[in-house]
Amino acid sequence: MITVYKHERGSTQVVDRVDPAWLKPDSGVWLWVDLSDPTPDETKILNDVFHFHELSIEDAIAEIHHPKVESYGTYLYLILHGIDFKAREHTFRTQEIDFFLGDHYLVTFHTGTSRSIQRVTEVCTRNDRALGEGPAALLYRIIDTLVDNYRPEVDKLAGRLDQMEKEIFSRPRSTIVKRILDYKRDIASLRRVVMPQRDAVGRLARREFPQIAEQLSYRFRDVHDHLIRLADEAVFFQDRISSLLDAHLSNVSNQLNGVMKVLTIISTIFMPMTVLTGLYGMNVPLPHLPGGEAAAFWWILGIMGTISGAMLGLFRRKGWL
Amino acid sequence: MITVYKHERGSTQVVDRVDPAWLKPDSGVWLWVDLSDPTPDETKILNDVFHFHELSIEDAIAEIHHPKVESYGTYLYLILHGIDFKAREHTFRTQEIDFFLGDHYLVTFHTGTSRSIQRVTEVCTRNDRALGEGPAALLYRIIDTLVDNYRPEVDKLAGRLDQMEKEIFSRPRSTIVKRILDYKRDIASLRRVVMPQRDAVGRLARREFPQIAEQLSYRFRDVHDHLIRLADEAVFFQDRISSLLDAHLSNVSNQLNGVMKVLTIISTIFMPMTVLTGLYGMNVPLPHLPGGEAAAFWWILGIMGTISGAMLGLFRRKGWL
Amino acid sequence: MITVYKHERGSTQVVDRVDPAWLKPDSGVWLWVDLSDPTPDETKILNDVFHFHELSIEDAIAEIHHPKVESYGTYLYLILHGIDFKAREHTFRTQEIDFFLGDHYLVTFHTGTSRSIQRVTEVCTRNDRALGEGPAALLYRIIDTLVDNYRPEVDKLAGRLDQMEKEIFSRPRSTIVKRILDYKRDIASLRRVVMPQRDAVGRLARREFPQIAEQLSYRFRDVHDHLIRLADEAVFFQDRISSLLDAHLSNVSNQLNGVMKVLTIISTIFMPMTVLTGLYGMNVPLPHLPGGEAAAFWWILGIMGTISGAMLGLFRRKGWL
Amino acid sequence: MITVYKHERGSTQVVDRVDPAWLKPDSGVWLWVDLSDPTPDETKILNDVFHFHELSIEDAIAEIHHPKVESYGTYLYLILHGIDFKAREHTFRTQEIDFFLGDHYLVTFHTGTSRSIQRVTEVCTRNDRALGEGPAALLYRIIDTLVDNYRPEVDKLAGRLDQMEKEIFSRPRSTIVKRILDYKRDIASLRRVVMPQRDAVGRLARREFPQIAEQLSYRFRDVHDHLIRLADEAVFFQDRISSLLDAHLSNVSNQLNGVMKVLTIISTIFMPMTVLTGLYGMNVPLPHLPGGEAAAFWWILGIMGTISGAMLGLFRRKGWL
Amino acid sequence: MITVYKHERGSTQVVDRVDPAWLKPDSGVWLWVDLSDPTPDETKILNDVFHFHELSIEDAIAEIHHPKVESYGTYLYLILHGIDFKAREHTFRTQEIDFFLGDHYLVTFHTGTSRSIQRVTEVCTRNDRALGEGPAALLYRIIDTLVDNYRPEVDKLAGRLDQMEKEIFSRPRSTIVKRILDYKRDIASLRRVVMPQRDAVGRLARREFPQIAEQLSYRFRDVHDHLIRLADEAVFFQDRISSLLDAHLSNVSNQLNGVMKVLTIISTIFMPMTVLTGLYGMNVPLPHLPGGEAAAFWWILGIMGTISGAMLGLFRRKGWL
Repeated sequence: MITVYKHERGSTQVVDRVDPAWLKPDSGVWLWVDLSDPTPDETKILNDVFHFHELSIEDAIAEIHHPKVESYGTYLYLILHGIDFKAREHTFRTQEIDFFLGDHYLVTFHTGTSRSIQRVTEVCTRNDRALGEGPAALLYRIIDTLVDNYRPEVDKLAGRLDQMEKEIFSRPRSTIVKRILDYKRDIASLRRVVMPQRDAVGRLARREFPQIAEQLSYRFRDVHDHLIRLADEAVFFQDRISSLLDAHLSNVSNQLNGVMKVLTIISTIFMPMTVLTGLYGMNVPLPHLPGGEAAAFWWILGIMGTISGAMLGLFRRKGWL
Repeated sequence: MITVYKHERGSTQVVDRVDPAWLKPDSGVWLWVDLSDPTPDETKILNDVFHFHELSIEDAIAEIHHPKVESYGTYLYLILHGIDFKAREHTFRTQEIDFFLGDHYLVTFHTGTSRSIQRVTEVCTRNDRALGEGPAALLYRIIDTLVDNYRPEVDKLAGRLDQMEKEIFSRPRSTIVKRILDYKRDIASLRRVVMPQRDAVGRLARREFPQIAEQLSYRFRDVHDHLIRLADEAVFFQDRISSLLDAHLSNVSNQLNGVMKVLTIISTIFMPMTVLTGLYGMNVPLPHLPGGEAAAFWWILGIMGTISGAMLGLFRRKGWL
Repeated sequence: MITVYKHERGSTQVVDRVDPAWLKPDSGVWLWVDLSDPTPDETKILNDVFHFHELSIEDAIAEIHHPKVESYGTYLYLILHGIDFKAREHTFRTQEIDFFLGDHYLVTFHTGTSRSIQRVTEVCTRNDRALGEGPAALLYRIIDTLVDNYRPEVDKLAGRLDQMEKEIFSRPRSTIVKRILDYKRDIASLRRVVMPQRDAVGRLARREFPQIAEQLSYRFRDVHDHLIRLADEAVFFQDRISSLLDAHLSNVSNQLNGVMKVLTIISTIFMPMTVLTGLYGMNVPLPHLPGGEAAAFWWILGIMGTISGAMLGLFRRKGWL
Repeated sequence: MITVYKHERGSTQVVDRVDPAWLKPDSGVWLWVDLSDPTPDETKILNDVFHFHELSIEDAIAEIHHPKVESYGTYLYLILHGIDFKAREHTFRTQEIDFFLGDHYLVTFHTGTSRSIQRVTEVCTRNDRALGEGPAALLYRIIDTLVDNYRPEVDKLAGRLDQMEKEIFSRPRSTIVKRILDYKRDIASLRRVVMPQRDAVGRLARREFPQIAEQLSYRFRDVHDHLIRLADEAVFFQDRISSLLDAHLSNVSNQLNGVMKVLTIISTIFMPMTVLTGLYGMNVPLPHLPGGEAAAFWWILGIMGTISGAMLGLFRRKGWL
Repeated sequence: MITVYKHERGSTQVVDRVDPAWLKPDSGVWLWVDLSDPTPDETKILNDVFHFHELSIEDAIAEIHHPKVESYGTYLYLILHGIDFKAREHTFRTQEIDFFLGDHYLVTFHTGTSRSIQRVTEVCTRNDRALGEGPAALLYRIIDTLVDNYRPEVDKLAGRLDQMEKEIFSRPRSTIVKRILDYKRDIASLRRVVMPQRDAVGRLARREFPQIAEQLSYRFRDVHDHLIRLADEAVFFQDRISSLLDAHLSNVSNQLNGVMKVLTIISTIFMPMTVLTGLYGMNVPLPHLPGGEAAAFWWILGIMGTISGAMLGLFRRKGWL
């Protein structure tokens, strides 16, 4: 579907086609053309009306590129990614949006509904001024919304890490390893998405391109800042998730230690007892214990108790109990 | 075998030798000379007809160099690698193709059949225009095909990693370590092949060399982009394969823990029983249990059952069962 | 609360509002405006009187940015962080202070009481000269105090690490892992706070901005030096805390080794004894031992003692005892 | 020993001393002076005849420097290292060769026999043209030979790694750790030697120095390429050797797991048997088993067999057998 | 204590105060002022006579800075560190020396005796020429001595590492972990001291400062070289010490494996024996073994021996013995 917003002399209208005349430098018209899930026929507008370079058109259609910004002389071509992270299912999906920014127009291209585009659409419909600031300001609005959408996802991730850390120390389970690895991959994905995005927006902020006016570059610097923080947090998360794995492995070792101590204590106490009963079960004349025959059984029990007590005392001193 | 494609006034022909006159700046001829498994005699053409620098000829023949691009003034010398990855056998083979790019000619040199060259050959045979865009465009076509061939191999690798991850958590086996290391090496090889390739193509994209026109540099930028993504994925894979090893080691530890718990539970239940039977097997007067002689056996069994039950209860509370 | 310090002709006064006339280049007035927990109404001064760029005002109010320095032409906008580290509770809190530095004024903006601002306030109240050196010198004073406040916190952290290291080797406990991870996170936080701060102050020291005179840049170089050392120490701490975890894991392994040796020694000594008593408890004719029936029991004890002694000797030779 | 090769008007002679007149710019003489294990007296030539800077002379005599290239105005001073790696004994020896390259002379200085110098000496003796290409070409020849000598050593190392990897998986032994560490150190040494060498030769290849003509710089680029590949391989080896250690540790864990499973299976089967025999060895009236007294023994054996079979079935289901 | 060396017209004298007239550009006097443990009064000379910037004076007095070099226009301010490493006690002490280098004077400032200063003092006292080369040459002398003093300390450290490696493989003890960590910290300290030092001296060598003449810069390049090698070695040591920890952990695992094998062998041999004796100790009619009653005991012993032999054969085949 193609939606065309035309801004002329202070008012914004939705029109149903693009007149090539509007693209002339002195037309006084500002355009926003949004291609959402465009049909191959609709896609032709990129070539027939806007005459974009075939490679940038191919890139937009293919949707397999990483975030970047490229200048094609008369227009900028940008790829940015929105994220849609469902922490529970470990599905870390990115949604590519392609931008073509000329002096008088902005063309956006995306497959599926983009939350950021949708929100800016609403603003543009309600408010004539939104497009009136020019296409670069519109680009800023969309990118700003897109990056703002990262924040709750990242906070959710931070929350999950906190929760997992608590779990590791309160009720350690072996299944946690799988979850740690799942989150590790999510965080690596986040980092891979954010970093090139940060660099691309950074180039917009540094006023490398004439399409971005100085006043706007301050705004992009602000978005750039947000992305720096997100990238920084992704690195911090990677560090934390590694620590979680270490903590888990250390816990497993501690448990093993605990299990082995129990086994050793049990063996150390009962093995001598077995030998003692074995001795008095031998079919040879047994030495007489004080107190006569009848007391023998209790004497033996007493010896057993003494040995056990001594052993337990030793283990306590070793700090095993 | 030498195959010579000659393009003159809009039509491409396969000819059987290179006339040095065609190499003159104003000959109006575009040439593609493909040396596939050339005999030493055929190799002489590089020196006798094209007068390439002896070092670049040596490099082409030796086939032991890493991907690079070098300018020798009148021509560019490129080494790029195709990959042929058989995941099942962990054979990660690279195939070197050497390119000599002049203003009016492209010479390719390779040992063994190259899938990329083959495909471009077919295009050239069917289509006069293919060589008509000039030798640099032809170079782009070959490199593009070569890099496109990486994608399925890399996807195969990603699939294997997914599968291995599942295996590690469903049916852990000790042989997985060998496979993890094998894949680790494959991924390291991939990275070693892709990274210098990315840098070499990046130099073509940045228009460092006069042989690459501006219009073509956009195309090389596109290939460069593909290589950046491949290199990025190789790094991501390295991270994942390390995680797999961690997961495996953690699994082994967990298993050990499980085994030790079984042993401890068994020992803790049966050792006291042994001592009890030992006590009543002693050749000393035994204390009378309530219910008369006949009930003694059942009393003892009862005591054993009670102890076992208590122990099992304790283990359940500790979370071992 | 807004506090306004006005310096004119050598004397500093606290006034209750800012006269826009004072902001003119030739007013001869130096101003320090401190907004501490300002109400929305008070915040308006940033826009209405100083006409700061809306993005810098938003940044100041939002308080979620990382340390940075940005030039907005007529003024510098800085974000720096004080730290408030309670080692015992592992609460690593940072306090953001925003600075707007113009040629004739310094505006500080912070939520909650800042120890550094407070101290410089006291100096300004007591001493006319403090503001008399100009707003950039005042900025230096505040930053210097702020960075000086890091030192005791970092020393406390170093002390904790020393103490933990001693503990690990003297009385190893499994709960130490949790503490190690807590400190690891504190150190990572410290590093994340100090590093951008170092870079921001570094830019002030390198005289990138006309607001900082050469004489002052030496002072900022000094603060920069302090921050370099703090960042350096944070990296060193990260290294040490990793070593602590290694040491702990190694300790756990050693303990396990010790436990297993005890178990093995016990089993190796008592198992043969059990078999021996079992043999002589069989209901079959037993071979006669020298010395007659009555000596049999003692013969068997003697054999047991000999075996145990031999075993213990073997273990000693193996270095297990 | 000093050997002086003098090239004048197309013919090379071995002479026994250096006439200072030959060093004048217009003498038309090209010299190669090789100092092999020079006596202190012979060393004086560096100062008295060539007037080299005292620091470069000190460096040459001290033989403790890392590879580098330095310009002293009229001459270049180079330190490069040959390697002599005996894989079996893990002796990784480097041999320093010092080069002084002027416009008309090359002075080489080394302790002990250098294989590279020796080979180039043979070439010079047999072939007048060798020195006729000038001292820089001679330098190239020596460096090329020196770097070529690395290849077999590195291949040997690669072979050892392959072999060790096989061993780890076929017959794991604890002594392998020592060997892994030995190779790790060898590889680290290789890397430390190759990297500065690569950088030094890279500077020669980039034509930073007027002593190296453009035509020669291509040759040095070739040597540089070899060194890049060697450094690349050293990094790859470091990665592999770390993997080997991981594999070994994983193997040890697996073995431990196997041992513990055997112990647990044995204990789980025989402990209940012991209790059973203990029960029927008690000196209390035993319950009658069906089939009369005579069948009791076989009944008990049957029960034992049943329990063992059940246990073994359970272990098989758990995948322990 | 202040010591003032004054060099005028070829002779060096020790004088007891600094005449400000000597500091004038055309005084023809070269001065070296050494402040060793100066009293606050003596320190005033820095301000009153030399008029150094207050920040550099503060830095010199505070003695808490890392190595650096800073230009204050008319003079250079340097901080360098000597080391005093007592390997046995793991005390890694650094001694700060501050240098103020002007065109005609060198001021050194240090707390405690500096071995380097002391040695250069001796040279100056004996030899008029030492100061006659100018203050920058004197600075070089001191720094050279200071860096030369690193070498024996570093060699001692290398020796300790060799010795520890041998110990780990010959007689592993758990206390080695503590020592490994101690050395790890020493090496990290060494690296932290050497690296900024290398960078500071590197700036002197690159002739960034007019106080260092070209001829002297060669000498500083030499010292820089030494520091590069030291830094390189520190990195190499860090790698080795990590390997040592790995080796130790691997050893501990191997030991555990060995202990567990002994336990398993013992259990596997004696448990069946126990069951066998238990069977023949049951109070039920026992099956008759061939050879009559009297042979029963020996039959059972024979069965035991057979089982043990079979077990041991099995373990040998598994490679456990």
